[in-house]
Amino acid sequence: MMLNSELATAIMNSVDAGFDEQVALTAELVKFPSVRGAEHTAQDFVASALRERGLAVDRWRIDIDAIRHMPGFSPVHVEYDNAFNVVGSHRPRSAKGRSLILNGHIDVVPVGPLDMWTTPPFAPRIEDGWLYGRGGGDMKAGLAGCLAGIDALARLGYRPAADLHIQSVVEEECTGNGALACLERGYRADAALIPEPMWNQLIRAQVGVLWFQVRVRGVPVHVREARAGANAIEAAFPIIEALHGLEEAWNTRREHYPPYETVEHPINLNIGRIEGGDWPSSVPAWCVFDVRVAIYPGQEIAAAKREIEATIRDAARANRFLANNPPEIVYHGFEAEGYVLKDGEEAVALLGRAHRQVFGEALAEIATTGTTDARFFGLYAGIPALVYGPNADSIHGFDERVELESVRRCTQAMALFIAEWCGLEKV
Amino acid sequence: MMLNSELATAIMNSVDAGFDEQVALTAELVKFPSVRGAEHTAQDFVASALRERGLAVDRWRIDIDAIRHMPGFSPVHVEYDNAFNVVGSHRPRSAKGRSLILNGHIDVVPVGPLDMWTTPPFAPRIEDGWLYGRGGGDMKAGLAGCLAGIDALARLGYRPAADLHIQSVVEEECTGNGALACLERGYRADAALIPEPMWNQLIRAQVGVLWFQVRVRGVPVHVREARAGANAIEAAFPIIEALHGLEEAWNTRREHYPPYETVEHPINLNIGRIEGGDWPSSVPAWCVFDVRVAIYPGQEIAAAKREIEATIRDAARANRFLANNPPEIVYHGFEAEGYVLKDGEEAVALLGRAHRQVFGEALAEIATTGTTDARFFGLYAGIPALVYGPNADSIHGFDERVELESVRRCTQAMALFIAEWCGLEKV
Repeated sequence: MMLNSELATAIMNSVDAGFDEQVALTAELVKFPSVRGAEHTAQDFVASALRERGLAVDRWRIDIDAIRHMPGFSPVHVEYDNAFNVVGSHRPRSAKGRSLILNGHIDVVPVGPLDMWTTPPFAPRIEDGWLYGRGGGDMKAGLAGCLAGIDALARLGYRPAADLHIQSVVEEECTGNGALACLERGYRADAALIPEPMWNQLIRAQVGVLWFQVRVRGVPVHVREARAGANAIEAAFPIIEALHGLEEAWNTRREHYPPYETVEHPINLNIGRIEGGDWPSSVPAWCVFDVRVAIYPGQEIAAAKREIEATIRDAARANRFLANNPPEIVYHGFEAEGYVLKDGEEAVALLGRAHRQVFGEALAEIATTGTTDARFFGLYAGIPALVYGPNADSIHGFDERVELESVRRCTQAMALFIAEWCGLEKV
Repeated sequence: MMLNSELATAIMNSVDAGFDEQVALTAELVKFPSVRGAEHTAQDFVASALRERGLAVDRWRIDIDAIRHMPGFSPVHVEYDNAFNVVGSHRPRSAKGRSLILNGHIDVVPVGPLDMWTTPPFAPRIEDGWLYGRGGGDMKAGLAGCLAGIDALARLGYRPAADLHIQSVVEEECTGNGALACLERGYRADAALIPEPMWNQLIRAQVGVLWFQVRVRGVPVHVREARAGANAIEAAFPIIEALHGLEEAWNTRREHYPPYETVEHPINLNIGRIEGGDWPSSVPAWCVFDVRVAIYPGQEIAAAKREIEATIRDAARANRFLANNPPEIVYHGFEAEGYVLKDGEEAVALLGRAHRQVFGEALAEIATTGTTDARFFGLYAGIPALVYGPNADSIHGFDERVELESVRRCTQAMALFIAEWCGLEKV
């Protein structure tokens, strides 16, 4: 269907009418410290919010054994005791339009040292039109926006005329196994929309991501004989340097991986965590560091791993001690392929129209140097997955914030998209 | 007094007669996991052992406020809730000989990853004449040896004819504030003997030690913009490199600091611990690392600190981000001066005679590249402090062990020394 301009305006106004409520819901979500291993209480809250809206709620704990054989699965070394997915489903009286999955993740990354925050990360505050708090941008504003979108339609007496599933998933920030578990449970649709904080743009392509941990062992001795042992912390440095060499080598290959040939430095390798040693006066016998590196869409994970392993092996060979005690490499998270959105031009055109209606300009597309759960829908279920969402700052950093005006407009565009993609029926 | 050879032989035989018991006591001590903050239960055990031997036991919690003004105090950033010193004192009917402090520390360094131990660190085992376990060498064998020394005399119906204080102190491995607190409490003697594991040698000189922590802060961003932020972990590397430059500069100055002019590489700088970042996919905004560095006897602590601080400041200046966000330096442990044993030649000669009697060879002297609590007695109380003890391996490492035959002989030498230094009276 094509929305007539009167209905489109009504939908946009209805988003505005509900916006205070939407912001309050977003702030409420930010209060849950839904870092890895502690997502369950936030998910309970989401389940209630979905139920209040008349959606059928499906809540289940992720079962690793049920998904570990599936393509896209990432290895996991933690317990999933509190890893619950929540899906709220609307099924119309008679499905006329195209079905849709709205997907958002509830998990947030760690907050880091509290003293680097201006105000506490899980105490949301609004200042100068921005909502501050860990997860506000990435991506509780988007998740709340999904609910606000159907609220806006309901306020006008409408609901989607096609199946609509609102998915609140865990594990987006480390494996994607939450989104994968939704596939395993059977959720499918004609398109998926993920309102990640994309500065009001659409992701056309996303990189893949690998996580690995390098474990270096040294020879422990009393510091008075420091030079007799191998300092495991310092033995890690040349390995890290070699990994940056690999990063640069991969960046020079970008011409082979469209659309990344025009992106400056698409491959980022990050040493995100390090820990080693136990005592200032003991030569450290161990050091572990965590690495995140991007791969191109189309770059094979197995081949990338071989290059990583060879790089570490060669760097270790140059160190007398490490040559005989090679570092251990453990894959402990993301084994994510890259994804280029295709076979979704109808949905893209429709989202572009909605965006233009709200923002008054064309929808920009980007090739992002990050990953999202979109890959699961696109690569493993043939569902075109559109990632489009508001303007946020400092996600994964301190004083993370999301711009409320942008949230309002993206929600308007999303509501228009739902109405047009799914069609509408009277409540 | 000069022991006649009959009595000397009797004392040595008496040590042998009690040796199984001594080994059992040592193993019992090793079972206590008396790492920092958990020394109290081991100290209770020591207090009981002293009391059983008829010594007057003084047990007190270290009061930082009572010692912080004293020379030799080291700053401390942890609680002293469980930091109890224990002293057992023998006071003869009439003091004829020279008084003596036998000092040992009950604290042990952390064990590190358990999987690097052949058997659990606090489950002592004996194999091929060595006792294995954390703290066995450093220095529970020596501490048990102090008790075994007076046991050997008691078995012959003797006790020292002078005041004898057996001190079991905490904090040797990080500050020395335990030994300092013994001075504050008033314990004094004509000499002190510390049976640290010294491979049957006497320490003639020991270096000083400084501990400091360097805290680096970065600019946190999402890894997809990795190059926009400053990776605090990697920003630490050039600072560490610069500190090694300072280490080498100090080593080249050794000709000015006898007796270290002939010691190869007396100054060791150790990066003993590192921690940074929270998440593989977040650019780390913080990194802290702990450093231990030696200083020469006579090298001033304040001047050494100034050099350290200038080194870090200059290294930070070379980094665009760190230049404006200089690392923080925190002194969080040892501020220990070096010490050269002097004014103790009578005691040294006597220990040398005892050693020759047992080992059949001259007592070797070393300038060690580590520190001990001896400095407190020597520098701040005018008490010559002799450090002499058994052969141990891998102290501060894995599978720490102490050689039992060496323990037996050092205990014989120590018992002879007590008898000759203090004199003997009949029980």
